[in-house]
Amino acid sequence: MALDAQKVEEGVMENTLSVIPLGGVEEIGLNMTVFEYGNDIIIVDAGLMFPEEDMLGVDFLIPEFSYITDNKEKVKGIILTHGHEDHTGALPFLLKEINVPIYGTPLTLGLVREKLREHHLEKAELIPVKPRDIIKLGVFSIEFIRVTHSIVDGVGLGIQTPVGLVVHTGDFKLDPTPVDGQLMDFHKFTEYGEKGTLLLLSDSTNAEKGGFTFSEKEVKRVFEDIFSNAPGRIIIATFASNIHRIQQAIDVAVKYGRKVIMCGRSIVSNAQIALDLGYLRIPQNTWLRLEDLRKLEDHEVVIITTGSQGEPMSVLSRIATGEHKTIKIKDGDTVILSARMIPGNEQPIGRIINHLFRRGADVIYEKVSEVHVSGHASKEELKLMLNLVKPKYFMPIHGEYRHLVYHSKLAEKLSIPKENIFILENGDVLDIAEEGASRNSKVNSGRIFIDGKGMGDVEDMVLRDRRRLAHDGIVLILLAIEKLTGNIVSGPDIISRGFVFEDASQEVINDVRELVTSTMKEFDKEILSDTSLIQAKLRGVLKRYLRNTMDRRPMIMPIIIEV
Amino acid sequence: MALDAQKVEEGVMENTLSVIPLGGVEEIGLNMTVFEYGNDIIIVDAGLMFPEEDMLGVDFLIPEFSYITDNKEKVKGIILTHGHEDHTGALPFLLKEINVPIYGTPLTLGLVREKLREHHLEKAELIPVKPRDIIKLGVFSIEFIRVTHSIVDGVGLGIQTPVGLVVHTGDFKLDPTPVDGQLMDFHKFTEYGEKGTLLLLSDSTNAEKGGFTFSEKEVKRVFEDIFSNAPGRIIIATFASNIHRIQQAIDVAVKYGRKVIMCGRSIVSNAQIALDLGYLRIPQNTWLRLEDLRKLEDHEVVIITTGSQGEPMSVLSRIATGEHKTIKIKDGDTVILSARMIPGNEQPIGRIINHLFRRGADVIYEKVSEVHVSGHASKEELKLMLNLVKPKYFMPIHGEYRHLVYHSKLAEKLSIPKENIFILENGDVLDIAEEGASRNSKVNSGRIFIDGKGMGDVEDMVLRDRRRLAHDGIVLILLAIEKLTGNIVSGPDIISRGFVFEDASQEVINDVRELVTSTMKEFDKEILSDTSLIQAKLRGVLKRYLRNTMDRRPMIMPIIIEV
Repeated sequence: MALDAQKVEEGVMENTLSVIPLGGVEEIGLNMTVFEYGNDIIIVDAGLMFPEEDMLGVDFLIPEFSYITDNKEKVKGIILTHGHEDHTGALPFLLKEINVPIYGTPLTLGLVREKLREHHLEKAELIPVKPRDIIKLGVFSIEFIRVTHSIVDGVGLGIQTPVGLVVHTGDFKLDPTPVDGQLMDFHKFTEYGEKGTLLLLSDSTNAEKGGFTFSEKEVKRVFEDIFSNAPGRIIIATFASNIHRIQQAIDVAVKYGRKVIMCGRSIVSNAQIALDLGYLRIPQNTWLRLEDLRKLEDHEVVIITTGSQGEPMSVLSRIATGEHKTIKIKDGDTVILSARMIPGNEQPIGRIINHLFRRGADVIYEKVSEVHVSGHASKEELKLMLNLVKPKYFMPIHGEYRHLVYHSKLAEKLSIPKENIFILENGDVLDIAEEGASRNSKVNSGRIFIDGKGMGDVEDMVLRDRRRLAHDGIVLILLAIEKLTGNIVSGPDIISRGFVFEDASQEVINDVRELVTSTMKEFDKEILSDTSLIQAKLRGVLKRYLRNTMDRRPMIMPIIIEV
Repeated sequence: MALDAQKVEEGVMENTLSVIPLGGVEEIGLNMTVFEYGNDIIIVDAGLMFPEEDMLGVDFLIPEFSYITDNKEKVKGIILTHGHEDHTGALPFLLKEINVPIYGTPLTLGLVREKLREHHLEKAELIPVKPRDIIKLGVFSIEFIRVTHSIVDGVGLGIQTPVGLVVHTGDFKLDPTPVDGQLMDFHKFTEYGEKGTLLLLSDSTNAEKGGFTFSEKEVKRVFEDIFSNAPGRIIIATFASNIHRIQQAIDVAVKYGRKVIMCGRSIVSNAQIALDLGYLRIPQNTWLRLEDLRKLEDHEVVIITTGSQGEPMSVLSRIATGEHKTIKIKDGDTVILSARMIPGNEQPIGRIINHLFRRGADVIYEKVSEVHVSGHASKEELKLMLNLVKPKYFMPIHGEYRHLVYHSKLAEKLSIPKENIFILENGDVLDIAEEGASRNSKVNSGRIFIDGKGMGDVEDMVLRDRRRLAHDGIVLILLAIEKLTGNIVSGPDIISRGFVFEDASQEVINDVRELVTSTMKEFDKEILSDTSLIQAKLRGVLKRYLRNTMDRRPMIMPIIIEV
């Protein structure tokens, strides 16, 4: 096999564990790590990432995983740490290329099963595990270790490899009072520390934040405060996967004599899955249907929905703009946005809050009340994890470069030698053998844009064009010329989109038309006999003209037809 | 005069003060308020606003001020509260329409003069005032009252009108230890409270935030901490207008034996203006030029620059990406982003931080250290202002709707009756007479997009096209047909931009071409004789096809030439 030969050439030894992040160390999202030893590969997580602002029109991104498909016969299984999309969203795309069993806890698999169905991948082999289970995949033994996070049923991993023990935290926080009473398995992490752990991979999302992340239970206290004062209906928007948050809303609703209506496809589906699996407890006659809304008094209603990020098609957005069929905001309504404002979403979220206020609701959100806590460990928790596991080598994961740097600084403070800390980039290979650990080579890596049903047909060049079009629009110049002479027989016609408001700017359009006509007259025969030359020249002249007169740079496309 | 007649018809009385916000009560920015009584108008501030994310390609916005130009003979003057662009940036555009004197404190006018020069408006009449000065403009007497804010030389206003006293805070915070020792004029605000104030207009920017805003001096403490530990050069990025922040950086630099280099056009210009006016104090031989950088040891250097918002052409951005000619990041450099991350800018700022870390710098920013404090009053300060001025009527300004709502809630808590609180929208007219206050009418208002040198030629329709182009690009179908028969004589040629990566997607392009050809064959004579009908039909067919097969919605433009 060419690739293995190449790896050996590049200095990868036998008896070496290779740890290869294919995503998640240059971004929040795309989490995916390969563990390879000899002829065995296991994959931990396969996540997606939501596009950054300049990735125009892209729905989401997945990691470039050609390294996996090129080595597919080695892959023994995929292990999922929890059910968030930034850890599971690339799975359907990966499963179209390789057919291996997938391991995860029941809720994780429940959520994944739903997604796979949408991709017609019902036949995937999903194998449920529970915390403290140990599975064997090739040379690897993997133990599942319970963690607390903003989704229930999350696990970290203790991986026994031929070169030593590896601990992978998954996403975690140290919640001392979890909603379901299921503490993080401190004892197991401590055991790995006691046994001697070679390498720790730990969640860096909140490595910039000092102190301890608040317990999820804190939100309940705030909910109780709001519920006890709300005069009318209460509408709570949160992430559909945040089962504990939904549980707390239900618990407080019951306490204050309110019924719960869930609104929105994903939240109903997730709640049903969680209910069926026993992760959500709802008393009889508490969860009603949207149709029951009109039978209830306002003070008997809690509506739980999604749209906390300002998504324009969400239930909350439609409620805010008065477009929802059933739910119309009125005086006395209280709306709670129980979620973090993800950077980049502040403006759409802000607009929704303004709309809701205008329609008479009272609106409560992260900035004005503690209606949300993070699911990720802050500095003190990260330090505790490092101290419990006491790894020889440390690799911060799940973060942009700055998060990994801040996490490394913590590790250094805890006396892990700088040379034992590895900030990797996607595709970097960390090799660990008895002799030591080093970063020697790099495998194919990158990000694949998913736009509609297309995968990989949107590249940087397409995005560059979209940014250009977005900024100043497009100007088309239509021109029919006589072959040989180059005389204009029809046109020039100027059509623009996204450039100027044509009704008000006929002058500009006329100027452009005249400029094209006069420029054409100046061309000599040589130019006129070559349409691509005419196009290039016209483009240049117009580009300069529009930049100088208007300070704009639209895309300019001369279309020349010879007749 | 038609407009006045209309106003009287709409119920505006004689002996009535009209307060009309033309901007700043539906957004952060665009601050501009008209005070009108009889034949006199004064204008307070004339600000711009930076575009929201979906205003593609727009450079900035200014208020629609046709109400002012329609009543230009009434306007007695423009009063500026401070030199920030969200209070002065529309001034050049306003001065092209009306010629009236502009009043402001020296630094405000110094900054404005620079801007007016760029617009060839050197002849504008700028009249300097100082705190506690009183000027008379028509029926209005305006007293300038010192406030503290993130720019020096800010003032609020006490306006004596025929119906009573009005207080306008401008932007403010209650800094108990201002860098220049110039306290906010509590005594004057109290005096207005004592005399009996009819109406208070107060800054709502931070009305969501609990507690007190920290003093600017707190930043010095943090700077000292960083300076005392930094092994090499220190680079500080902040807003060019934040003279106090620059002063503090200089003070700490001097204390730690470092020289200061300012880098970037706006920061050098602002610092020079502030220095000339005595607002900035720099010891001899402290401010050096960029050329002197190589003569200094690393531990002797502080570079002050802009780019704290991740602006791609800024000095900081060029330093971060290695494109700056003189300043190359190396191990041991410390970079401080001493500014707020304005919502919407987190991603570009985050990328710059990542780049700086990758090149070896240590980077310190708001999220990890207190290197920035806000310039706006938080809830406790807003309450104190309300209590000092004790207005009969209250109008929260400077904020989006939610900020105004939260500010109103504070006023209600302080026992201002709800019916005396007016949350206005841009263009709303608040009429105050002896009989009482009420909102009766509305004048023209809105936002004008400034794109390059164009003003008002970008409308919603243009932005809608840009959004569409940004999302899925454009597909052009070129077709030459025979007149009358409609037979294709050339084409169809398919050209796309921002749609798919054509090199990799020839199949899609071919499919589209075939679909056009086959669709054309199905058209009957009637359709074929009407090119606009052909265009509409083709557009419909392709739209459906691309949505179903690819889930994309590019702009589709069939271009049909009859020969």
